[in-house]
Amino acid sequence: MTYTRTLACLRCAATYPDPSLELVGRGCPSCEAGGVPANVLPVYDLSGRNAVPVADGEPGLFRYRALLPLAADTRAVSLAEGATPVVALPAVAAELGVGTVVVKDETRNPTWSYKDRLAAVAVTKAVELGINTVVVASTGNHGAAIAAYAARAGLRCVVLTVASVPSTMKTLMQVYGASVVALPEPRQRWSLMRELVRTFGWLAMSGHADPPVGSNPYGVDGYKTIAYELVEQLPSPPDVVVVPTAYADGLAGIARGFADLVALGLIERAPRMVAAEPFGPHAAALASGSELAGPVPYEPSVAFSTASPVGTFQGLSALRSTGGSAVAVPDDGVTLRAQRDLAASAGLYQEAASATAWPALATLAAQGSLGRDASVVVIGTSTGLKDVGATAATLPEVPVIEPTADALLAAIGT
Amino acid sequence: MTYTRTLACLRCAATYPDPSLELVGRGCPSCEAGGVPANVLPVYDLSGRNAVPVADGEPGLFRYRALLPLAADTRAVSLAEGATPVVALPAVAAELGVGTVVVKDETRNPTWSYKDRLAAVAVTKAVELGINTVVVASTGNHGAAIAAYAARAGLRCVVLTVASVPSTMKTLMQVYGASVVALPEPRQRWSLMRELVRTFGWLAMSGHADPPVGSNPYGVDGYKTIAYELVEQLPSPPDVVVVPTAYADGLAGIARGFADLVALGLIERAPRMVAAEPFGPHAAALASGSELAGPVPYEPSVAFSTASPVGTFQGLSALRSTGGSAVAVPDDGVTLRAQRDLAASAGLYQEAASATAWPALATLAAQGSLGRDASVVVIGTSTGLKDVGATAATLPEVPVIEPTADALLAAIGT
Ligand SMILES: [Zn+2]
Ligand SMILES: [Zn+2]
Repeated sequence: MTYTRTLACLRCAATYPDPSLELVGRGCPSCEAGGVPANVLPVYDLSGRNAVPVADGEPGLFRYRALLPLAADTRAVSLAEGATPVVALPAVAAELGVGTVVVKDETRNPTWSYKDRLAAVAVTKAVELGINTVVVASTGNHGAAIAAYAARAGLRCVVLTVASVPSTMKTLMQVYGASVVALPEPRQRWSLMRELVRTFGWLAMSGHADPPVGSNPYGVDGYKTIAYELVEQLPSPPDVVVVPTAYADGLAGIARGFADLVALGLIERAPRMVAAEPFGPHAAALASGSELAGPVPYEPSVAFSTASPVGTFQGLSALRSTGGSAVAVPDDGVTLRAQRDLAASAGLYQEAASATAWPALATLAAQGSLGRDASVVVIGTSTGLKDVGATAATLPEVPVIEPTADALLAAIGT
Repeated sequence: MTYTRTLACLRCAATYPDPSLELVGRGCPSCEAGGVPANVLPVYDLSGRNAVPVADGEPGLFRYRALLPLAADTRAVSLAEGATPVVALPAVAAELGVGTVVVKDETRNPTWSYKDRLAAVAVTKAVELGINTVVVASTGNHGAAIAAYAARAGLRCVVLTVASVPSTMKTLMQVYGASVVALPEPRQRWSLMRELVRTFGWLAMSGHADPPVGSNPYGVDGYKTIAYELVEQLPSPPDVVVVPTAYADGLAGIARGFADLVALGLIERAPRMVAAEPFGPHAAALASGSELAGPVPYEPSVAFSTASPVGTFQGLSALRSTGGSAVAVPDDGVTLRAQRDLAASAGLYQEAASATAWPALATLAAQGSLGRDASVVVIGTSTGLKDVGATAATLPEVPVIEPTADALLAAIGT
């Protein structure tokens, strides 16, 4: 065990005992009062250690449970998440002028997105704490992952969504047995969630601060396992890790995993984290030096998983501490073309939000800010199957032909 | 290397040299002339061996390449397929009165179905043979998998489909860059494919015999790797393996993998193979002693991946040689309920065809034909995301509520 049963504010370093249920999804009350909400995250004691402790008998990412914020005797709620492969893209590396590019293909998770890492740890913590109901505000991957793990654990799951929720996501959340309700206005979900947490003792699986701080802090540390896996999988530690980002749970969690590896003496320095985001709240704050990421102007986006006008302090902290950067990719056409290009050249069909990573990388390459020998990792966050319609709109009709070879050749343009 | 560079007819044992491109997807010409088409499949020489040779440096299922029908110097076309987890379902085991039940979750593959195992080996073989175009008749998982691997390999992929192809599947095949055309009648695809193979030297990735024999024989052996993985993953070899089945490529390939393990002396006997099928062509043939599986009456089915009125000789052969059985699950309502039950109880959302496994198992349990201590494996063949609409039709509307705790409790029925 390395977990100290303490949560600490990322911004002011104030510490809080675990559990402090009302801080989950809300963050540090004193920073909130000061106008810059910031997440509180688990504190570990790694002193005297020089390796990642691995529990081989544990399922999925609980292999790394000694570096997760859990009690030693807590039973893992697992669907065999994690241990996702990396797929090399040598042609893309050549085009960008870097050493190597790999996709960490997180579509291979139980609900086909990397949110399963958050859900596995957050729901396991809910069981540890004796919680009977978990609540999450989501229109997508996050809600689906929580619903699946709550089903596995036998917990009730309440999803607060919006009337415009994409049909695929609504179905996915409901099929796992979650109670899904829509609120007229998106922001009403946060105040309602805070009331539910206070009144009924339900555990928040996503944030309810405004501006946001990020998600359930135990869940954020589920993403640390991506860093541990990458260092095992790659011939050398990555130099750049690109993460499609909204509230930066994944970005912050992965950076925390690399920070652990530095503290353990296993890598010399953490890779530069790069946020790919449709509208650029983190990019704007990095440029201005602000502690608040956004709001920036926004509009509907095909990258629905990350289409947020605001980011988080945890995101800015990860970017600043690693010398990283954030790139806005606002053009749906550019995003959808990147999605198709990756599928047709490499056989990987990722969600549109994930596809924003490629134009972001191209921007950094054009600025000369990627090293010539850089080892670049792109987190492939979720499958394109979660919003097939957006892709379909860019593709031709399927022609109906006569059953002859000549008709076929004419139809396929040969 | 154990591969003998020979293909043998499953029925008459006639052998053919590799390559015999015109037999791929057609099967044995002499059995075809006799009215019972049968697949020709690779022959291996395992004499003097007592272990599964493992190539740790190879990607994905090519770890097992010494037991695949490839030349030693062929470069693997891989998207890091295989190595899928098993997820235990203790409550289901108790309900069925067996020892253990696990799902082999094949949704964790690159295109989220077990067809990736077929595609990886069949496309690699196409590259080995210097083929420039692969052709496949499919309305679903099979075509998507071939399209993705062809993209990875830089081969042209032509998909022959039907006008009624589900929109998700059309998009998935197209996004990987395949040329997708529809024929007015489904059976026209087979004669056209045979013409394309003969005229242009394209390689068939699916069958073009009528009645069918099954798919590309190299690809069928990709499924052998499921057996090898299961014996590594489970505490003891399985007694029963349930496979959702149409033309039985998966069923036959998995049975061939277990036969290898028996030949190597690693397991005492192969598990009983069970085909779960919507309309029961294999079940009818097992009952009547026929060598032809169907045709049986059929209608449109939510289990679109396996909704076939005909099966194959390779399927019957695998079932008979293992003392297995086949069970028809024709009722869409039963299938969709099984799909929802698994998702809501275990957090696994599988395609409807895969969900037919559960009613099939319940039938066998009611007949007393599962052993009390049996170790049962169900192959979870593909994700429910491939046809979300069918699931959605069974679920309630999402209510829009006022943002109060009382309104929420009323809406979720508490
Ligand atoms: Zn603070
Ligand atoms: Zn024959």
